[in-house]
Amino acid sequence: MDKREVYLDNSATTKLDEDVLEAMMPYFTEYYGNSLSQYGFSRKCAQAVDDARYSVAKAIDCKPVEVYFTSCGSEANSWAVRGGALSGRKRGSHVILSKIEHPSIMNSGKWLTQNGFDVTYLDVDKYGMVHEDELRKAIREDTVLISIMLANNEIGTIQNIPALAAIAHANGIVFHTDCVQAMGLIDVNVKKLGVDMLTISAHKFYGPKGVGVLYVRSGLIIDRLINGGGQERGMRGGTTNTPLIVGMGVAIEKAVTETDTNAAKITLMRDRMIERIKNEIPDVILNGHPRQRLPSNVNFAFNYIEGESILMRLDLEGIAVSSGSACSSGSLEPSHVLLATGLPVERAHGSIRFSIGKHNTMEDIDYTVDKLKVIIAQLREMSPLYKPQDRVKEV
Amino acid sequence: MDKREVYLDNSATTKLDEDVLEAMMPYFTEYYGNSLSQYGFSRKCAQAVDDARYSVAKAIDCKPVEVYFTSCGSEANSWAVRGGALSGRKRGSHVILSKIEHPSIMNSGKWLTQNGFDVTYLDVDKYGMVHEDELRKAIREDTVLISIMLANNEIGTIQNIPALAAIAHANGIVFHTDCVQAMGLIDVNVKKLGVDMLTISAHKFYGPKGVGVLYVRSGLIIDRLINGGGQERGMRGGTTNTPLIVGMGVAIEKAVTETDTNAAKITLMRDRMIERIKNEIPDVILNGHPRQRLPSNVNFAFNYIEGESILMRLDLEGIAVSSGSACSSGSLEPSHVLLATGLPVERAHGSIRFSIGKHNTMEDIDYTVDKLKVIIAQLREMSPLYKPQDRVKEV
Repeated sequence: MDKREVYLDNSATTKLDEDVLEAMMPYFTEYYGNSLSQYGFSRKCAQAVDDARYSVAKAIDCKPVEVYFTSCGSEANSWAVRGGALSGRKRGSHVILSKIEHPSIMNSGKWLTQNGFDVTYLDVDKYGMVHEDELRKAIREDTVLISIMLANNEIGTIQNIPALAAIAHANGIVFHTDCVQAMGLIDVNVKKLGVDMLTISAHKFYGPKGVGVLYVRSGLIIDRLINGGGQERGMRGGTTNTPLIVGMGVAIEKAVTETDTNAAKITLMRDRMIERIKNEIPDVILNGHPRQRLPSNVNFAFNYIEGESILMRLDLEGIAVSSGSACSSGSLEPSHVLLATGLPVERAHGSIRFSIGKHNTMEDIDYTVDKLKVIIAQLREMSPLYKPQDRVKEV
Repeated sequence: MDKREVYLDNSATTKLDEDVLEAMMPYFTEYYGNSLSQYGFSRKCAQAVDDARYSVAKAIDCKPVEVYFTSCGSEANSWAVRGGALSGRKRGSHVILSKIEHPSIMNSGKWLTQNGFDVTYLDVDKYGMVHEDELRKAIREDTVLISIMLANNEIGTIQNIPALAAIAHANGIVFHTDCVQAMGLIDVNVKKLGVDMLTISAHKFYGPKGVGVLYVRSGLIIDRLINGGGQERGMRGGTTNTPLIVGMGVAIEKAVTETDTNAAKITLMRDRMIERIKNEIPDVILNGHPRQRLPSNVNFAFNYIEGESILMRLDLEGIAVSSGSACSSGSLEPSHVLLATGLPVERAHGSIRFSIGKHNTMEDIDYTVDKLKVIIAQLREMSPLYKPQDRVKEV
């Protein structure tokens, strides 16, 4: 078997589509004007930004005026949580998040705590699901904001957002959902989800890095995060980034068109990978939900060994994967998401996320599992922790 | 005289240099990895980001660990002012800004006021200069942050930042300066300026839109603005934007190399433009300082007429200029900068900023002034306000 290059870290970032880049190029070269300027030279930029805003609105089923361009998902998430809470401060100072949110949400929660808010973090079950009862119990008189992600970045668990948002609204509370991982893989529709705010980021669906969107329902006013001039209807400062916004527009049009095809293809690869790992490698635990899960996500705990060692050995075989969420890699902290599902620290440390994208093939999957079998066996032979009689039952 | 295309709005944004774009391209195509990931595929991205950080550090004379990449100047300014104030809250809750700061600073000041801070806005003289005595008088026991820009975006006035920063430090106060307009046109050196924080933005010096830098002196800890994972040493969330950061690195290297040549060439154009307008068009006032002024900036009040009308007429001749600061165009509010210099509202409304860049030629300048003479004369003939006997003395 020849060595391949296999990129299985599509939840960290994806390859920019060629036609998306092509659409962006004129705005890096000839149409470099400031889209807010009033002369003819900039009109082409203003039109391009309008078109992209319309494409986003169409994709997520909202009005163009409800679309705010940001520089990334983390900015949009920080803005939603901090801005949503601060603007509600007159009504109360309690916020509810789940224990498995992205670091941009978790750390915005910390920021709120340091600034006079009280934050409740909802427990999840062993599959990473937030239960409606947990949310109902957590709601207080002074709750002003709830933020729960649609699909988790590490374990791929998909929440029942329509039900959770309905509970929020029955109590008059604003509801935000982080859809950064979901967009392009499952349906992301603000009306069906029933949310007041929603985050997406282009580089997760084959668009450019550096451009996100925060959807904010008409009539909802949130506090600003990036102060500035009149950009984004006065809500987000900074010279409008025309080329990247154009990239977002084209990428999201494609993402919506391709969702079903891509999801079907990717799901087949996911299911084969999960089956093969469960059947061919002993002592593994599938992290996340067996069914309510992103098409792209495979996450396993390989007991008795370190995820970092697996990652490095896979890297030598040309396979790119993640040992935690990509955003916190570099850190040796165990994943807060895996711990929240009840996984013991040592097993969280032995976990690997494989995230499949539209450019992967079944050969990539088989190559990876074949290599993985050998690597896991070799690492376990060297592991002082591994005693075959301790084998856990596969899940 | 044939019609030309003359871009005189280089303070709003500049044309991306071809070689900067060329350096960025591989990171839009083959090297699309997440620079923080731990596998070989991403190493090239990590190295490119390190190199760019080093280039910025060398350009502004600081350490690479003092460079934080942001998505724009407005983000960096919002972060410096809000983050600098919040982190100092235990020591006090008073902040000092000038009356002519960029909207990202002015509105961050407003945000602070809404969040328990007291903000003093320093007066400027008729040339837009902040006086050292004004700053000394404004300093209180509880002052924790001062932010004053190096060069103004509308009128180009250059402040004596080393003297102002020294006053701050004599009182134990953190000092930030917005150098977005200055970089590439005059020397921007954190040691010579003596500042604790400093903002720049690549698209003002022929780099890409969507990437700025906040310099934060080692040892100074500020509150985060964009929460997230471990990016930028845990201080700024969001997937590292490798292509744009590479663009910033190349653009700033070029900006530093070219500063003297560009400034000399642009200054000649500026001076000719100012002289010709003063000599050939009656009833004009030069806004800003006659000498302490950016090489690129020409700003005149054309009495008795509206800036918007001049802008539109110039646009028909292929000339792109700005009637206020670019960031607030679209708004019909008179410029807060011009009002702060004591210009009456109606004259602020009749002001135009011409900002010259390295791609302009003396022919552009002459073409613009020739057209301007005709336009101003025609507009005044139609203006009910214009009575030649009211002519003000030229400055």
